[in-house]
Amino acid sequence: MASLGRHLLVEMWDCDSRIDDVETIGRAIDEAVVAIGATLVQSHVHRYSPQGVTGLAVLAESHLSLHSWPEYGYLAADVFTCGTLTIPRRAVAVFEEIFAPGRIEVQEIERGVQVGDSALPKTIGSRVAHPTV
Amino acid sequence: MASLGRHLLVEMWDCDSRIDDVETIGRAIDEAVVAIGATLVQSHVHRYSPQGVTGLAVLAESHLSLHSWPEYGYLAADVFTCGTLTIPRRAVAVFEEIFAPGRIEVQEIERGVQVGDSALPKTIGSRVAHPTV
Repeated sequence: MASLGRHLLVEMWDCDSRIDDVETIGRAIDEAVVAIGATLVQSHVHRYSPQGVTGLAVLAESHLSLHSWPEYGYLAADVFTCGTLTIPRRAVAVFEEIFAPGRIEVQEIERGVQVGDSALPKTIGSRVAHPTV
Repeated sequence: MASLGRHLLVEMWDCDSRIDDVETIGRAIDEAVVAIGATLVQSHVHRYSPQGVTGLAVLAESHLSLHSWPEYGYLAADVFTCGTLTIPRRAVAVFEEIFAPGRIEVQEIERGVQVGDSALPKTIGSRVAHPTV
Protein backbone atom coordinates (compact mmCIF):
# COMPACT_ATOMS: atom_id res chain seq x y z
CA MET A 1 0.00 0.00 0.00
CA ALA A 2 1.76 3.10 -1.24
CA SER A 3 1.18 6.69 -0.24
CA LEU A 4 1.75 9.96 -2.03
CA GLY A 5 2.95 11.92 0.97
CA ARG A 6 4.35 11.68 4.45
CA HIS A 7 3.24 14.11 7.12
CA LEU A 8 5.03 14.61 10.42
CA LEU A 9 3.07 16.34 13.18
CA VAL A 10 5.49 17.52 15.85
CA GLU A 11 4.42 18.70 19.31
CA MET A 12 7.05 20.55 21.33
CA TRP A 13 6.56 21.74 24.90
CA ASP A 14 8.74 23.61 27.39
CA CYS A 15 10.47 25.44 24.58
CA ASP A 16 12.55 28.50 25.33
CA SER A 17 11.60 32.06 24.40
CA ARG A 18 13.10 31.83 20.92
CA ILE A 19 9.80 30.40 19.68
CA ASP A 20 8.54 34.01 19.86
CA ASP A 21 11.32 35.38 17.67
CA VAL A 22 10.64 35.94 13.98
CA GLU A 23 14.24 35.57 12.91
CA THR A 24 14.70 32.33 14.80
CA ILE A 25 11.52 30.83 13.34
CA GLY A 26 12.70 31.84 9.88
CA ARG A 27 16.11 30.31 10.49
CA ALA A 28 14.53 27.09 11.75
CA ILE A 29 12.51 26.82 8.56
CA ASP A 30 15.54 27.45 6.37
CA GLU A 31 17.68 24.94 8.25
CA ALA A 32 14.94 22.32 8.34
CA VAL A 33 14.38 22.60 4.59
CA VAL A 34 18.08 21.99 3.99
CA ALA A 35 18.26 19.17 6.54
CA ILE A 36 15.42 17.17 5.02
CA GLY A 37 16.74 17.67 1.50
CA ALA A 38 13.76 19.67 0.26
CA THR A 39 13.57 22.62 -2.12
CA LEU A 40 12.18 25.91 -0.87
CA VAL A 41 9.75 27.70 -3.17
CA GLN A 42 8.66 30.49 -0.83
CA SER A 43 8.42 31.14 2.88
CA HIS A 44 6.61 33.63 5.05
CA VAL A 45 6.99 34.36 8.76
CA HIS A 46 4.38 36.34 10.66
CA ARG A 47 4.40 37.59 14.23
CA TYR A 48 1.13 38.06 16.08
CA SER A 49 0.31 40.61 18.75
CA PRO A 50 0.95 40.33 21.65
CA GLN A 51 2.87 37.13 21.00
CA GLY A 52 3.14 34.04 18.83
CA VAL A 53 4.78 33.42 15.48
CA THR A 54 3.75 31.46 12.39
CA GLY A 55 6.20 30.35 9.75
CA LEU A 56 5.00 28.69 6.55
CA ALA A 57 7.09 27.39 3.68
CA VAL A 58 5.93 26.19 0.29
CA LEU A 59 8.25 23.37 -0.74
CA ALA A 60 8.72 21.68 -4.08
CA GLU A 61 7.72 18.63 -2.03
CA SER A 62 4.63 20.17 -0.24
CA HIS A 63 5.00 22.32 2.91
CA LEU A 64 6.53 22.97 6.29
CA SER A 65 4.88 24.98 9.07
CA LEU A 66 5.68 26.26 12.56
CA HIS A 67 3.19 27.82 14.98
CA SER A 68 4.23 29.01 18.42
CA TRP A 69 2.35 29.75 21.62
CA PRO A 70 5.12 31.35 23.70
CA GLU A 71 2.85 31.81 26.70
CA TYR A 72 2.62 28.01 26.90
CA GLY A 73 6.15 27.25 25.72
CA TYR A 74 4.49 25.27 22.93
CA LEU A 75 5.54 24.94 19.30
CA ALA A 76 3.65 22.93 16.66
CA ALA A 77 5.49 21.84 13.53
CA ASP A 78 4.24 20.11 10.39
CA VAL A 79 6.51 18.61 7.78
CA PHE A 80 4.54 17.40 4.76
CA THR A 81 6.63 15.95 1.94
CA CYS A 82 6.01 13.90 -1.17
CA GLY A 83 8.46 11.74 -3.04
CA THR A 84 11.17 9.53 -1.64
CA LEU A 85 14.13 11.88 -1.77
CA THR A 86 13.49 13.83 1.42
CA ILE A 87 14.12 12.66 4.98
CA PRO A 88 11.48 14.62 6.92
CA ARG A 89 12.51 13.34 10.37
CA ARG A 90 15.75 15.29 10.10
CA ALA A 91 13.68 18.44 10.66
CA VAL A 92 12.95 17.26 14.19
CA ALA A 93 16.64 17.37 15.12
CA VAL A 94 16.84 20.93 13.79
CA PHE A 95 13.88 22.02 15.90
CA GLU A 96 15.29 20.30 18.98
CA GLU A 97 18.60 22.05 18.61
CA ILE A 98 17.14 25.50 18.03
CA PHE A 99 14.19 25.52 20.45
CA ALA A 100 15.38 23.07 23.13
CA PRO A 101 11.94 21.61 23.92
CA GLY A 102 11.68 19.78 27.22
CA ARG A 103 9.16 17.37 25.72
CA ILE A 104 8.62 16.39 22.12
CA GLU A 105 6.11 14.10 20.40
CA VAL A 106 6.25 13.10 16.76
CA GLN A 107 3.40 11.50 14.85
CA GLU A 108 3.77 10.36 11.26
CA ILE A 109 0.71 10.13 9.04
CA GLU A 110 0.67 8.77 5.52
CA ARG A 111 -1.16 11.09 3.15
CA GLY A 112 -2.75 9.96 -0.10
CA VAL A 113 -2.73 6.28 0.73
CA GLN A 114 -3.43 4.50 -2.52
CA VAL A 115 -5.98 1.72 -2.47
CA GLY A 116 -7.62 -0.03 -5.42
CA ASP A 117 -8.02 2.08 -8.53
CA SER A 118 -6.51 5.08 -6.79
CA ALA A 119 -3.11 3.47 -7.35
CA LEU A 120 -3.44 4.05 -11.08
CA PRO A 121 -2.55 7.48 -12.42
CA LYS A 122 -5.47 9.05 -14.26
CA THR A 123 -3.18 10.66 -16.78
CA ILE A 124 0.09 9.64 -18.34
CA GLY A 125 2.96 11.23 -16.54
CA SER A 126 6.27 10.43 -14.98
CA ARG A 127 6.00 12.66 -11.98
CA VAL A 128 6.75 10.96 -8.70
CA ALA A 129 7.02 13.99 -6.49
CA HIS A 130 6.83 17.56 -7.71
CA PRO A 131 10.21 17.29 -9.47
CA THR A 132 10.31 20.67 -11.10
CA VAL A 133 9.58 23.84 -9.23
CA MET B 1 -8.10 18.14 28.78
CA ALA B 2 -7.88 21.26 26.66
CA SER B 3 -5.99 21.77 23.43
CA LEU B 4 -4.56 24.86 21.81
CA GLY B 5 -5.41 23.93 18.23
CA ARG B 6 -7.60 21.77 16.03
CA HIS B 7 -6.16 20.24 12.89
CA LEU B 8 -8.29 18.71 10.14
CA LEU B 9 -6.50 16.43 7.68
CA VAL B 10 -8.70 15.98 4.63
CA GLU B 11 -8.09 13.32 1.97
CA MET B 12 -10.00 13.76 -1.30
CA TRP B 13 -9.93 11.27 -4.17
CA ASP B 14 -11.52 11.16 -7.59
CA CYS B 15 -11.48 14.92 -7.81
CA ASP B 16 -12.04 16.64 -11.12
CA SER B 17 -9.38 18.47 -13.12
CA ARG B 18 -9.89 21.75 -11.32
CA ILE B 19 -7.43 20.59 -8.65
CA ASP B 20 -4.74 21.44 -11.23
CA ASP B 21 -5.93 25.00 -11.72
CA VAL B 22 -4.19 27.79 -9.86
CA GLU B 23 -7.17 30.12 -9.84
CA THR B 24 -9.51 27.44 -8.52
CA ILE B 25 -7.13 26.46 -5.74
CA GLY B 26 -6.82 30.14 -4.81
CA ARG B 27 -10.57 30.55 -4.81
CA ALA B 28 -11.02 27.45 -2.66
CA ILE B 29 -8.63 28.89 -0.08
CA ASP B 30 -10.38 32.24 -0.05
CA GLU B 31 -13.84 30.69 0.28
CA ALA B 32 -12.71 28.21 2.93
CA VAL B 33 -11.18 30.99 5.03
CA VAL B 34 -14.47 32.89 4.94
CA ALA B 35 -16.54 29.75 5.60
CA ILE B 36 -14.65 28.76 8.72
CA GLY B 37 -14.68 32.32 10.05
CA ALA B 38 -10.91 32.80 9.97
CA THR B 39 -8.82 35.84 9.12
CA LEU B 40 -6.43 35.65 6.18
CA VAL B 41 -2.98 37.10 6.73
CA GLN B 42 -1.35 36.02 3.46
CA SER B 43 -1.76 33.29 0.89
CA HIS B 44 0.40 31.87 -1.87
CA VAL B 45 -0.51 29.47 -4.69
CA HIS B 46 2.15 27.69 -6.67
CA ARG B 47 1.83 25.46 -9.72
CA TYR B 48 4.38 22.74 -10.36
CA SER B 49 5.57 21.41 -13.69
CA PRO B 50 4.17 19.35 -15.32
CA GLN B 51 1.23 19.33 -12.92
CA GLY B 52 0.15 19.79 -9.33
CA VAL B 53 -0.72 22.85 -7.31
CA THR B 54 0.04 23.93 -3.74
CA GLY B 55 -1.92 26.60 -1.95
CA LEU B 56 -0.88 27.82 1.48
CA ALA B 57 -2.54 30.43 3.65
CA VAL B 58 -1.26 32.02 6.83
CA LEU B 59 -4.25 32.67 9.04
CA ALA B 60 -4.61 34.73 12.18
CA GLU B 61 -5.67 31.35 13.60
CA SER B 62 -2.77 29.23 12.14
CA HIS B 63 -2.88 27.89 8.55
CA LEU B 64 -4.73 26.23 5.70
CA SER B 65 -3.09 24.20 2.93
CA LEU B 66 -4.04 22.42 -0.28
CA HIS B 67 -1.80 20.08 -2.28
CA SER B 68 -3.01 18.41 -5.46
CA TRP B 69 -1.83 15.39 -7.42
CA PRO B 70 -4.00 15.74 -10.55
CA GLU B 71 -2.58 12.56 -12.08
CA TYR B 72 -4.19 10.65 -9.21
CA GLY B 73 -7.25 12.85 -8.81
CA TYR B 74 -6.04 13.41 -5.26
CA LEU B 75 -6.20 16.54 -3.14
CA ALA B 76 -4.86 16.87 0.41
CA ALA B 77 -6.15 19.66 2.62
CA ASP B 78 -5.10 20.76 6.09
CA VAL B 79 -7.08 23.17 8.21
CA PHE B 80 -5.19 24.09 11.39
CA THR B 81 -6.94 26.60 13.63
CA CYS B 82 -6.59 27.85 17.18
CA GLY B 83 -9.19 29.47 19.35
CA THR B 84 -12.86 28.68 19.59
CA LEU B 85 -14.30 31.15 17.10
CA THR B 86 -13.63 29.23 13.89
CA ILE B 87 -15.60 26.25 12.57
CA PRO B 88 -12.92 24.38 10.58
CA ARG B 89 -15.24 21.64 9.31
CA ARG B 90 -17.04 24.17 7.17
CA ALA B 91 -13.98 24.15 4.92
CA VAL B 92 -14.76 20.57 3.95
CA ALA B 93 -18.09 21.58 2.41
CA VAL B 94 -16.31 24.26 0.37
CA PHE B 95 -13.80 21.74 -0.96
CA GLU B 96 -16.58 19.25 -1.77
CA GLU B 97 -18.50 21.83 -3.73
CA ILE B 98 -15.53 23.09 -5.72
CA PHE B 99 -13.60 19.88 -6.41
CA ALA B 100 -16.40 17.28 -6.34
CA PRO B 101 -14.32 14.46 -4.81
CA GLY B 102 -15.76 10.98 -5.24
CA ARG B 103 -14.35 9.94 -1.88
CA ILE B 104 -13.44 12.06 1.10
CA GLU B 105 -11.93 11.24 4.48
CA VAL B 106 -11.59 13.70 7.33
CA GLN B 107 -9.42 13.18 10.38
CA GLU B 108 -9.35 15.63 13.26
CA ILE B 109 -6.31 15.86 15.48
CA GLU B 110 -6.03 17.99 18.60
CA ARG B 111 -2.81 19.98 18.64
CA GLY B 112 -1.19 21.30 21.79
CA VAL B 113 -3.08 19.06 24.16
CA GLN B 114 -2.47 20.49 27.59
CA VAL B 115 -1.61 18.08 30.38
CA GLY B 116 -0.29 18.82 33.84
CA ASP B 117 1.78 21.98 34.12
CA SER B 118 1.42 22.62 30.41
CA ALA B 119 -2.07 23.91 31.15
CA LEU B 120 -0.60 26.90 32.95
CA PRO B 121 0.52 29.84 30.86
CA LYS B 122 4.18 30.59 31.40
CA THR B 123 3.57 34.29 31.08
CA ILE B 124 0.67 36.51 31.99
CA GLY B 125 -1.51 37.12 29.00
CA SER B 126 -5.09 36.99 27.89
CA ARG B 127 -4.52 35.56 24.44
CA VAL B 128 -6.69 32.59 23.60
CA ALA B 129 -6.04 32.41 19.91
CA HIS B 130 -3.98 34.86 17.94
CA PRO B 131 -6.55 37.64 18.33
CA THR B 132 -4.71 40.44 16.65
CA VAL B 133 -3.06 40.07 13.29
